[in-house]
Amino acid sequence: MSLHASQIDQAAAPADSARFEAFSAPAAQERRQGEARVCMTPRYGEGEREVRVHWRLEGAAGAPVIIVQGGISADRNALPSATHQGWWRGFAGAGCAIDTARWRVLGIDWLSRRDLGAARAIDTADQASAIAGVLGALGIAQVHAFIGASYGAMVGLAFAARFPARLARLCAIAGAHRAHPLSVALRNIQRDIVRLGARSGDGLGGLALARRLAMTTYRSDREFAERCSDAPVYADGRFQFAEEPWLRAAGERFAARFDAQRYLALSESIDLHAVEPERIGVPVTLVGISSDRVVPLADVCELQRRCGSSATLHVIDSLYGHDGFLKEDAQIGAIVSEILESRGGVQ
Amino acid sequence: MSLHASQIDQAAAPADSARFEAFSAPAAQERRQGEARVCMTPRYGEGEREVRVHWRLEGAAGAPVIIVQGGISADRNALPSATHQGWWRGFAGAGCAIDTARWRVLGIDWLSRRDLGAARAIDTADQASAIAGVLGALGIAQVHAFIGASYGAMVGLAFAARFPARLARLCAIAGAHRAHPLSVALRNIQRDIVRLGARSGDGLGGLALARRLAMTTYRSDREFAERCSDAPVYADGRFQFAEEPWLRAAGERFAARFDAQRYLALSESIDLHAVEPERIGVPVTLVGISSDRVVPLADVCELQRRCGSSATLHVIDSLYGHDGFLKEDAQIGAIVSEILESRGGVQ
Repeated sequence: MSLHASQIDQAAAPADSARFEAFSAPAAQERRQGEARVCMTPRYGEGEREVRVHWRLEGAAGAPVIIVQGGISADRNALPSATHQGWWRGFAGAGCAIDTARWRVLGIDWLSRRDLGAARAIDTADQASAIAGVLGALGIAQVHAFIGASYGAMVGLAFAARFPARLARLCAIAGAHRAHPLSVALRNIQRDIVRLGARSGDGLGGLALARRLAMTTYRSDREFAERCSDAPVYADGRFQFAEEPWLRAAGERFAARFDAQRYLALSESIDLHAVEPERIGVPVTLVGISSDRVVPLADVCELQRRCGSSATLHVIDSLYGHDGFLKEDAQIGAIVSEILESRGGVQ
Repeated sequence: MSLHASQIDQAAAPADSARFEAFSAPAAQERRQGEARVCMTPRYGEGEREVRVHWRLEGAAGAPVIIVQGGISADRNALPSATHQGWWRGFAGAGCAIDTARWRVLGIDWLSRRDLGAARAIDTADQASAIAGVLGALGIAQVHAFIGASYGAMVGLAFAARFPARLARLCAIAGAHRAHPLSVALRNIQRDIVRLGARSGDGLGGLALARRLAMTTYRSDREFAERCSDAPVYADGRFQFAEEPWLRAAGERFAARFDAQRYLALSESIDLHAVEPERIGVPVTLVGISSDRVVPLADVCELQRRCGSSATLHVIDSLYGHDGFLKEDAQIGAIVSEILESRGGVQ
């Protein structure tokens, strides 16, 4: 494995501003990102190959490392930076539940199927191998915690099953050991919408429509009832319903920044996900959201019962359904803080 | 209003078989169907116009009439015939809850937007006007009951609000006074899938995919979990997931028999549906299905609370979600029987 690291935002920031940032940051902060070359055997591929994995590491210099991974549309930037909003700002950063004054946060960009060459599909186990490879490249023997949400929770479970010695504890938020068949059906339809769009010469429109469908599954029925109660409006020759501007805008924003092939691969990866809970040998904290319609609470409960290790389940209420993992920073932050302080695990 | 009635299945059955049928049926059976010309003012149209409405009437000759209407893909054929399976066989027919030895069953084919000329959309109130027009044409002053399920329940509510003197009692199954905003969002996406298919030159594929999405909403998550637990299979260059053959076949069957424009109009009609429960002045029996994800039980409960008339709510459990209205003949049949025997209402 080889490693190509760089000061974060190096390309974007001129030399002076980089020096200023280093000066104004707490003395012992570490901020690095890079590309690791990881040798791995993709689950649905044909033998070993070298894969490039983009990572980012930031926090108190030399502090214990916490892996933070999110949904399929998230990336290595859980923390904000000059060029990224940070998909988990509010949860991770200075003074947050995952306090960068005390811990170092590590994240990777999800691999796509293309990164694996001729593989038939990409599995959560492949993403786990990529993360293990990055740990090796960075010389990190064990992380203090793996905190994964949504797809990140699935990858966290795959990581804990394959590399139990590499982590002291796992926190899996809004994720289970397998995808629920109804959610599989809905993602399968999303992928066929993307393909229909591509065939019609409107790839962007297809991707936006697929995401619009995904959005209906990410949020709770109560949120729809509360924010979409207005009567439809007739304008420009058609009726527009109350939820339309919201969902259309969300779909179009996503289509403008995301790649259709990547979407197809990662969406399928969720549906292929399967981890035997009995194989997980590290302390696990599960967070289920009662209004989650993508990952039903019943599946998280089954995971908790079947975990071979000691597994704790927290259930939170949220107006936001599955997306609660992005919005409930107070409730989830309190759980995460408690996990990070715990003395359980093989530290 | 003029009326063109014909012996049912006249065209399909040769004279001999028609005579045999008449001979073998109970002596006092009446079987008629026809096309009524109804003058009405469409809610989203521009003034009065004549509309052709296809109806079917069958049961004990001269017996009280029961209107039976189903979902948007149902038609006037609740009862089986030589040419139709009967979408509510098991519920309606000789010896069934709606016993054709005791009652006459009346149904219409839903109007589509095209039937209304230049109307911007078709409303459940328009379907109610069409049914009232057929009653007028047939000389039926009042029906014993209106039994509507799904879209038929919505039209029943619209009928009860507009023509309270025309019915003694209403039974609304798996329907409410308005569509839930989450269901609106999902149907709106289905319509955009149909449009995307039409743009891509694959209208049939678009319609099948839209119906596949609709199917995910018609059934319960428990049914998906029970019947789609098999692992995905890699064949012909792709993974196929457990629910795919079932849902694909359902979508393709529907696309082969249904018209895209009709689907767009009736799907939108559900979303435009809005009846003030306080305006309903006849005895109402509501049947909600606890696993229904299209018409949440909470909406049926709200309808019951707000009904100006005496309204009774029955809640049934079903593995089949919204589609329980097609499958739970024992549970729903018992409720329907009781309603038909009741002495309430202004008979």
